[in-house]
Amino acid sequence: MCDSCVMRSVAGALGRRGVLAAMAASAAALSVQPAAAQAVRSAPVHRVVDLTHTLRPDFPTFGGTPAFEMEQAMVLARDGYNVMKFTYYEHVGTHFDAPIHFAADGATVDRIPAENLVCPLVVLDVRAKAEADPDYQATPDDIAALERQHGRIPAGACVALNSGWDARANGPGFRNASGNALRFPGFRPDVAPLLIERNVASVAVDTLSLDHGGSTSFGFHKAWLGSGRWGLECVANLGALPATGATLVAGAPKVAGGTGGHGRVLALV
Amino acid sequence: MCDSCVMRSVAGALGRRGVLAAMAASAAALSVQPAAAQAVRSAPVHRVVDLTHTLRPDFPTFGGTPAFEMEQAMVLARDGYNVMKFTYYEHVGTHFDAPIHFAADGATVDRIPAENLVCPLVVLDVRAKAEADPDYQATPDDIAALERQHGRIPAGACVALNSGWDARANGPGFRNASGNALRFPGFRPDVAPLLIERNVASVAVDTLSLDHGGSTSFGFHKAWLGSGRWGLECVANLGALPATGATLVAGAPKVAGGTGGHGRVLALV
Repeated sequence: MCDSCVMRSVAGALGRRGVLAAMAASAAALSVQPAAAQAVRSAPVHRVVDLTHTLRPDFPTFGGTPAFEMEQAMVLARDGYNVMKFTYYEHVGTHFDAPIHFAADGATVDRIPAENLVCPLVVLDVRAKAEADPDYQATPDDIAALERQHGRIPAGACVALNSGWDARANGPGFRNASGNALRFPGFRPDVAPLLIERNVASVAVDTLSLDHGGSTSFGFHKAWLGSGRWGLECVANLGALPATGATLVAGAPKVAGGTGGHGRVLALV
Repeated sequence: MCDSCVMRSVAGALGRRGVLAAMAASAAALSVQPAAAQAVRSAPVHRVVDLTHTLRPDFPTFGGTPAFEMEQAMVLARDGYNVMKFTYYEHVGTHFDAPIHFAADGATVDRIPAENLVCPLVVLDVRAKAEADPDYQATPDDIAALERQHGRIPAGACVALNSGWDARANGPGFRNASGNALRFPGFRPDVAPLLIERNVASVAVDTLSLDHGGSTSFGFHKAWLGSGRWGLECVANLGALPATGATLVAGAPKVAGGTGGHGRVLALV
């Protein structure tokens, strides 16, 4: 799709205010980056891979304290049906980071257009490096090596970091705390401008944070979400996917004013 | 896929207990019906249709009292990032009904296999009848007429009732209360055995209940969820879809022990 077509598409999704902001600054946090221009998917779908961990009250959190509670509010034998009541902080389990999570004027999760949630999924495998170094940060060189092997990352894609950390999600090795610091892999901040230059729409990690566990400045979060893009944390099963060719279907919760939150994340292969 | 292959697939998803139950009774509520046997989708995907209403604290509920609260728990300027805290009853906004919602030994929402959440979507248009009669219940004759025009409903499909009620979701006309009774369309209970005979996997409505608003016995809910199948309520935008040919991607929340809950629901066309 030509640039002007993209702008018209964005105009439809965001209205005049969004277009003006997007025209004024390509990294405007208020807008959300458009999806890929071509057909959403042209190949047949043969299988569905669940990238979602089961959310339980004891699912590990970045802060280390439980963030999800549930109680049975209605009981079948007494009330005629079963209903649970949830109390939780949005960023728990397999969950989304909307731009507003780290950007004052960023888009809330309900403003991510639906077409942006279905996109090509590119998997960057750093499992060997992460096993050798739990503080590993994916670098621009890792992206370059991926592209040499699998071709240029398409505009509108989601780039997912497979560190192998999903296997630790049910134990203390997920946070991997050492004193006050957490130790797990993430994206190095200088990967953000490279992926923004590719017009990538979103990133995903299989750890608790887009930044590595030892980060105190959240440099990747700020650059990425601040550019109007969104992220996924605590995804599972990236090892079941090819490096390219899968389609992400990211079930972002559609809550007015939400900053992210738990949602079902599937891949079509 | 052959029947034995389906059983092996179900075995993988549910384990020995689930398989034995499924073998013992085809309508066992503990198991969840398998997805269609053939390729998930063979046609290209050209667009994404969002079937999800935006969830707000004032979104109408079946009981008439607000069921979703949110407050800002972390504030960017003070804490370094924005996070909301949610408190809600699962069955609010565009949401899922897992079998356990109405069946004592029914599957919880996390046990619906991922491959079951991506399926052919068949839309039954009863808008004219619902406009003439807000108590309208879709009948086996409606299903027969649909099949005469569009062919037999495929196994593993989701059948969605388009009553046009999604346009009312932001006002009192959605519940449409008249005295103590609600008045909105739904599925008549005797549609359940017909769709079960077709091995349909799920149903969706654009109203607050699978049963019509005036139901006090919840006959469709009990038959449908009691057979190990799941449902979707308060979906939007069914009018933007063809009667057949779309693929549902239903983002059920993956919460251990959940009875359903809000999730993003998309259609691929």
